[in-house]
Amino acid sequence: MKTVNIAIMGFGNIGVGTYQGLEVNHGAIAAETGLDLKVAKIIEVDIDRPRPVSPDRSLFTPDRMEVFQDPSIDVVVELIGGIEPATTFMLEAMRHGKHVVTANKAAIAANYEQLIGTAKEAGVLFRFEASVGGGIPVINAITTVLRSNQIEEVTGIVNGTTNFILTQMTQAGRSYADVLKEAQERGFAEADPTADVEGVDMANKLSILISLCFGDRVKVEDIPTIGITGVTPEDIAQAKAEGKVIKLVARATREDGKVVCSVAPARLDAEHPLAGVNNEFNAIYLRGNILGETMLYGKGAGPLPTGSAIIGDIIDIATRT
Amino acid sequence: MKTVNIAIMGFGNIGVGTYQGLEVNHGAIAAETGLDLKVAKIIEVDIDRPRPVSPDRSLFTPDRMEVFQDPSIDVVVELIGGIEPATTFMLEAMRHGKHVVTANKAAIAANYEQLIGTAKEAGVLFRFEASVGGGIPVINAITTVLRSNQIEEVTGIVNGTTNFILTQMTQAGRSYADVLKEAQERGFAEADPTADVEGVDMANKLSILISLCFGDRVKVEDIPTIGITGVTPEDIAQAKAEGKVIKLVARATREDGKVVCSVAPARLDAEHPLAGVNNEFNAIYLRGNILGETMLYGKGAGPLPTGSAIIGDIIDIATRT
Repeated sequence: MKTVNIAIMGFGNIGVGTYQGLEVNHGAIAAETGLDLKVAKIIEVDIDRPRPVSPDRSLFTPDRMEVFQDPSIDVVVELIGGIEPATTFMLEAMRHGKHVVTANKAAIAANYEQLIGTAKEAGVLFRFEASVGGGIPVINAITTVLRSNQIEEVTGIVNGTTNFILTQMTQAGRSYADVLKEAQERGFAEADPTADVEGVDMANKLSILISLCFGDRVKVEDIPTIGITGVTPEDIAQAKAEGKVIKLVARATREDGKVVCSVAPARLDAEHPLAGVNNEFNAIYLRGNILGETMLYGKGAGPLPTGSAIIGDIIDIATRT
Repeated sequence: MKTVNIAIMGFGNIGVGTYQGLEVNHGAIAAETGLDLKVAKIIEVDIDRPRPVSPDRSLFTPDRMEVFQDPSIDVVVELIGGIEPATTFMLEAMRHGKHVVTANKAAIAANYEQLIGTAKEAGVLFRFEASVGGGIPVINAITTVLRSNQIEEVTGIVNGTTNFILTQMTQAGRSYADVLKEAQERGFAEADPTADVEGVDMANKLSILISLCFGDRVKVEDIPTIGITGVTPEDIAQAKAEGKVIKLVARATREDGKVVCSVAPARLDAEHPLAGVNNEFNAIYLRGNILGETMLYGKGAGPLPTGSAIIGDIIDIATRT
């Protein structure tokens, strides 16, 4: 049995989901993989916030450097979110010899080269399956077994809020504003939904997918991005009449060696594998030069599905080191 | 650059597809992974059969032991098919220190413990992504990142022939016999379609999925198996009228610690992620205890998609050794 000592940095919803996932599956993971995955530290200032789990108070510390300098810690899971200070903290952890796992799409999209480069220099692994498509194991697939292919296209429905809104508009003929209000009331959309509905969240994820699929960097601000605020019930009805369905998709192709990409509402044929991806579900469609079409589907958000991806990354690191 | 010397054992359609995939993607794989994947030997008696590729004649040898005893060979790709002598040859290769990759579902389903056990004893890796769902990276997902979950259900459409027949019966209201005849003429179904249409091919794949998902062994002959020969246009029409679609699925769940499994035609809700998987496409739906639902979709057969999975396995082995 190999013990893996994990430090969770940032103990919000995703941190709690990861902790819960490790609690419930600790024994099964140990039996299958021979790994004893142990939350050894939680880097968090706010110890007393009400949470659905109650880790021993001795695990909490507000002092990240104490954790980074602790030689017994193997993996740091960054769940602070946002570009900074999260990027700086991840780089610090790597330079102290810690493997890093994160769900932080914004930080990766903004600082991809630096994060990958620093991990390489430091001789540690950097994993971020949860940053695109939540629990869907798409990044692992792209970076391991699908390396057998030259990827020709990646198209993703990688934002649950906008897909929920468009699905409800499509299935019930309701207006954007009406469905957004319901989504906010039900907790599927944030009070300020801008990053989702304007497509910025998807553009972050597309930037990461482009780096992985094409080995090319396109910054978020260079991705042409249109959200769903301009989609009307009439657009949807007209698409429907033509056998099509409107989905917000992040899409990149390589054409004559150049990456062409966008985030925008697209009219998909009813037969397209992404056309049936509804409500809060996400999916990533890939076309490889020898594989042809493939698609991976699942929950793109939520504490437990996201925790599933984070724990998967920890297992991957532990089996490779 | 790390050279990986590959021996392909059995140079039929899949062997040729693997060879073609390596030819067309050799440079891209080298650039992405630093691996120089090289077909160093082809174990095959029939050198002169007309094929769409022309490897140098010096690569061919009828003598597998010569290859197994060659210390420069890293990976043996078994593509003979069938339970024997393929199993014996794989075990021999492992005992000579070769990593083994195969697409051979029948051999794995019949001899899972022995193959896994011998690989472990010999200290080599054994990979078989292509054995279930062709190019779909489902086995990699189950055996790596989805180890974060306890799998509760696996349901697969993992036979293209039967899915093509049922799709055509559903979409065009045609009879089983009529569509089978067309499928045979178009090369989608074998002259003797028994193993496909009676569900035996799927039962082999389900046995493998059960081993991977539940760590439990159910032999093919112990899986209740019903094929599609009894499905009538009336059954399909009635399902349709109730908003359902009939698919041949391989399904296993764990209930009270026991694996319950079958291969049989199932009436899926139109909203089920597998309901839209049509014609020759395959998909595997999984339910994990923290991930929830996920599905992986793609081409389940064909020389290049299958070659994609085989090359992916070789890359996986090379990055772990």
